[in-house]
Amino acid sequence: MKTHILRVECADEKGLVYKVTGILYKHGLNIVSNDEFVDHEKKRFFMRTEYSGETDSKKILKELSRQLPKDAIVQLAPDRKKNIVIFATKEYHCLADLLLRHAHNELHANILAVVSNHRVLAPLTAQFKIPYHCLPCEGKTREEHEAAILKVVGRLRPEFLVLAKYMRILSGQLVRHFENRIINIHHSFLPAFTGANPYQQAAQRGVKIIGATAHYVTEDLDEGPIIAQDVIPVDHSHSVVDMAQAGRDVEKNVLARALKLVFEDRVFVSDNKTILFD
Amino acid sequence: MKTHILRVECADEKGLVYKVTGILYKHGLNIVSNDEFVDHEKKRFFMRTEYSGETDSKKILKELSRQLPKDAIVQLAPDRKKNIVIFATKEYHCLADLLLRHAHNELHANILAVVSNHRVLAPLTAQFKIPYHCLPCEGKTREEHEAAILKVVGRLRPEFLVLAKYMRILSGQLVRHFENRIINIHHSFLPAFTGANPYQQAAQRGVKIIGATAHYVTEDLDEGPIIAQDVIPVDHSHSVVDMAQAGRDVEKNVLARALKLVFEDRVFVSDNKTILFD
Amino acid sequence: MKTHILRVECADEKGLVYKVTGILYKHGLNIVSNDEFVDHEKKRFFMRTEYSGETDSKKILKELSRQLPKDAIVQLAPDRKKNIVIFATKEYHCLADLLLRHAHNELHANILAVVSNHRVLAPLTAQFKIPYHCLPCEGKTREEHEAAILKVVGRLRPEFLVLAKYMRILSGQLVRHFENRIINIHHSFLPAFTGANPYQQAAQRGVKIIGATAHYVTEDLDEGPIIAQDVIPVDHSHSVVDMAQAGRDVEKNVLARALKLVFEDRVFVSDNKTILFD
Amino acid sequence: MKTHILRVECADEKGLVYKVTGILYKHGLNIVSNDEFVDHEKKRFFMRTEYSGETDSKKILKELSRQLPKDAIVQLAPDRKKNIVIFATKEYHCLADLLLRHAHNELHANILAVVSNHRVLAPLTAQFKIPYHCLPCEGKTREEHEAAILKVVGRLRPEFLVLAKYMRILSGQLVRHFENRIINIHHSFLPAFTGANPYQQAAQRGVKIIGATAHYVTEDLDEGPIIAQDVIPVDHSHSVVDMAQAGRDVEKNVLARALKLVFEDRVFVSDNKTILFD
Repeated sequence: MKTHILRVECADEKGLVYKVTGILYKHGLNIVSNDEFVDHEKKRFFMRTEYSGETDSKKILKELSRQLPKDAIVQLAPDRKKNIVIFATKEYHCLADLLLRHAHNELHANILAVVSNHRVLAPLTAQFKIPYHCLPCEGKTREEHEAAILKVVGRLRPEFLVLAKYMRILSGQLVRHFENRIINIHHSFLPAFTGANPYQQAAQRGVKIIGATAHYVTEDLDEGPIIAQDVIPVDHSHSVVDMAQAGRDVEKNVLARALKLVFEDRVFVSDNKTILFD
Repeated sequence: MKTHILRVECADEKGLVYKVTGILYKHGLNIVSNDEFVDHEKKRFFMRTEYSGETDSKKILKELSRQLPKDAIVQLAPDRKKNIVIFATKEYHCLADLLLRHAHNELHANILAVVSNHRVLAPLTAQFKIPYHCLPCEGKTREEHEAAILKVVGRLRPEFLVLAKYMRILSGQLVRHFENRIINIHHSFLPAFTGANPYQQAAQRGVKIIGATAHYVTEDLDEGPIIAQDVIPVDHSHSVVDMAQAGRDVEKNVLARALKLVFEDRVFVSDNKTILFD
Repeated sequence: MKTHILRVECADEKGLVYKVTGILYKHGLNIVSNDEFVDHEKKRFFMRTEYSGETDSKKILKELSRQLPKDAIVQLAPDRKKNIVIFATKEYHCLADLLLRHAHNELHANILAVVSNHRVLAPLTAQFKIPYHCLPCEGKTREEHEAAILKVVGRLRPEFLVLAKYMRILSGQLVRHFENRIINIHHSFLPAFTGANPYQQAAQRGVKIIGATAHYVTEDLDEGPIIAQDVIPVDHSHSVVDMAQAGRDVEKNVLARALKLVFEDRVFVSDNKTILFD
Repeated sequence: MKTHILRVECADEKGLVYKVTGILYKHGLNIVSNDEFVDHEKKRFFMRTEYSGETDSKKILKELSRQLPKDAIVQLAPDRKKNIVIFATKEYHCLADLLLRHAHNELHANILAVVSNHRVLAPLTAQFKIPYHCLPCEGKTREEHEAAILKVVGRLRPEFLVLAKYMRILSGQLVRHFENRIINIHHSFLPAFTGANPYQQAAQRGVKIIGATAHYVTEDLDEGPIIAQDVIPVDHSHSVVDMAQAGRDVEKNVLARALKLVFEDRVFVSDNKTILFD
């Protein structure tokens, strides 16, 4: 069954669900699933509706814009997989997991290319016949390096950038350009252990739980809206290396879970938080 | 903010959300939260809507019954806490947890009485000033014992019976009378380890995870619709006694979680499954 | 079966397990369970041995001190429950949980008294026939208030202080006096959200997981050695109040778990970390 | 640091730890980590000791066999990775996970070959340059098919067989030959949902948690000693397909965790249970 996804976000007022579902009903469409959330503090309304049936999308959107508040953001998700570029550095586990899911048609996205500042993941990527752009930073200023990235990304025109353990910081310019379209996996349960070497920090603090966080990238490092988190127990016998090893399975699963939500249009960003219709 | 809870269950068809929300909209009511689910296999529709605003409930119900399919079950949750009777035997932890939540106004229910086949929990119950009915089974036939129970229950007229580690089996008659209104906590992650001594069974099987299950009681022991489950890890060093001790915290939390869902009218029973709007 | 618990901590060297078990063997004692850990980074050795059999403890300790390195800390756990004083403020859930376990002989400790800066938990404590010392801070300087606490504590001579949601900061003097003998429950997964209002902070940051941490109290607030942590998932629909409510069950379980470990002499503190023989 | 692993299993008696550690001490060896467990019910002793230092292994084993009870099983783990053959059918996720870990030197095992009754996983296996033996069952009796397997396995002489979602039942003969050396991943939290289609069974029963179990294969299907288990929450909105998809990540992680334990010689089998020194 082919379905369409309609997303609505606007200031809350009475009758919004009624109006949206009314338009779908009058066009003879069938609601497969419907999720709404009202943030009562901010008085904002969020809705994601999956419906089946054939109709003229433009007409639907037009009627919605007429009946909904002026500020309403209405989206009909494009009827195809999202195009993405994956960024990685040296660690294989997150990238490999995404390449595998992609190869088996479980990623809800097309991987256009992998970008890395190192060569080490080139053979793995080649195994899956995905283009690999090695853009080393050595001997380059930050501006030159980012220009090289922008050149690749600009040509490929991805909808999302996925940082699968990419150990470099992207410039504010790039981040702003891809607002709410860059997803990063950070190897700690944020906001604990921001910045470099979170497992080192965790071992030093003697925590009994470590975790991973997938979040949108904003200009404030590790401060963007959180999409998914998970944790695993550790104890005194875990060295930093043990933690990193145990953490890898959490990292890749959390990233995959977050991407599934994003690529299925299940995530709304509201200020610095996410609303997930799971 | 005072709110009302409307529940709708019926055969699925187009326009149901539209019709329900339309009636609320026309009466000037404000939807606080709204959850729907369509079981596409069984083609059944479930909806729970929390709304605020004053209106004539009877009018709303009448309009709903006119616009919804004939088979629709429409309920407006009564605007008060549920009345319940708790059944227990000798173990204190689930009963004590419910008494504590009740005393601190966190149970969403009035405990009318505690019924037990033993005296041991009488002092605990007395601490909380709740009536305790000790109905021993010794020297009584099953019929006589249940008649004694029915006499107490019949007089108190609870809406729900909560079996908080009640180690006796209720008769089919009682179960049928309280269809989908008796909640039991079973000390295993069902369907594993039904029946007596689940921790013994778990230790013998050498499982690495134990759990607890809150479910509606049906005539088939331990086979009723599951409301909530949770688990904890165990290992080879756990004796049966260790498992039982560790399991107690899971049991009481799972029962409390299930009761919160039930008493807030968040659970629909559909054949042998539950639909939870959490 | 009556057992004894021997604890050894010293600089690591070859033959330590051999020497300790040799002494027990020669005295005809039977090792019930044995746990060792070597911190290879710090080159420190930790051992907890539970043994059965009757013997002269002083002789054992003397032989151990002769054979083990000079710096060795050797302890034979006293053969009785620990004496504790519980501190609480207004929230009932952790205190009630400990009172219940105590009343049912599951706490591995004697509660000598409850100390609070408010009256609100007096009736609950009275239900369990435990002395309640209400020591309000109103109209008192910090010094005067703490002097009042010290007077009570000094008279009762507890081995451990348990801060069961005690919302005041203890003075450095008191903390130093009870070094590694004050256990606090903090309502976040430390090191995230230290200080006041962690659920508020968590809601604001939009985390998808909240938690609780039991730790030893040191002079650095929320920075002491962590004993136990646990988490639960939350989502965008959780208000601060919802988080606090959901968090309470985690808090009480984590505190109870930590106390079990401490009171069974299963915890070693090594700098700012704990080693748990669970 | 190069280490050796010594494993001892025997009837429990006094002085066992003392004797084992004494022999190591007298040979000037350094214990890196040491784990023991006494099953007090069965009166059996299990010990795993990791030590460093050079010595004559045969001498150590000889002395141990002289000092330990006659029935003692003493093993010095061979100082190399285990040789394994992986069996799979059509699902890629567990196989791919093991191939990836192997390629990145994280499996603690050499994959000698992959055996499958289908062609579908051949290209994936070829990506990792591992031999693939496609042994279809079509047109063959069970005996003929197993003979073909035995021929491959007999030639490769693996120490362990790993059933990574292999959907065929192995004969008693093969199972007996590889006693406690075949590890299977079953896609349910055993003992719930044994046999075929566990996700179907789980969906039908309406459970709120699904899981996976890695266990040794015995002649009783799904009844062998459990090594590792894990679970994830599900709800009414999960179809059988959703459950299977969500379950895959659990399956591969549980299998990888179990194999790590087995390949690092951390697992003892005692009747139908495992003792894990993790």
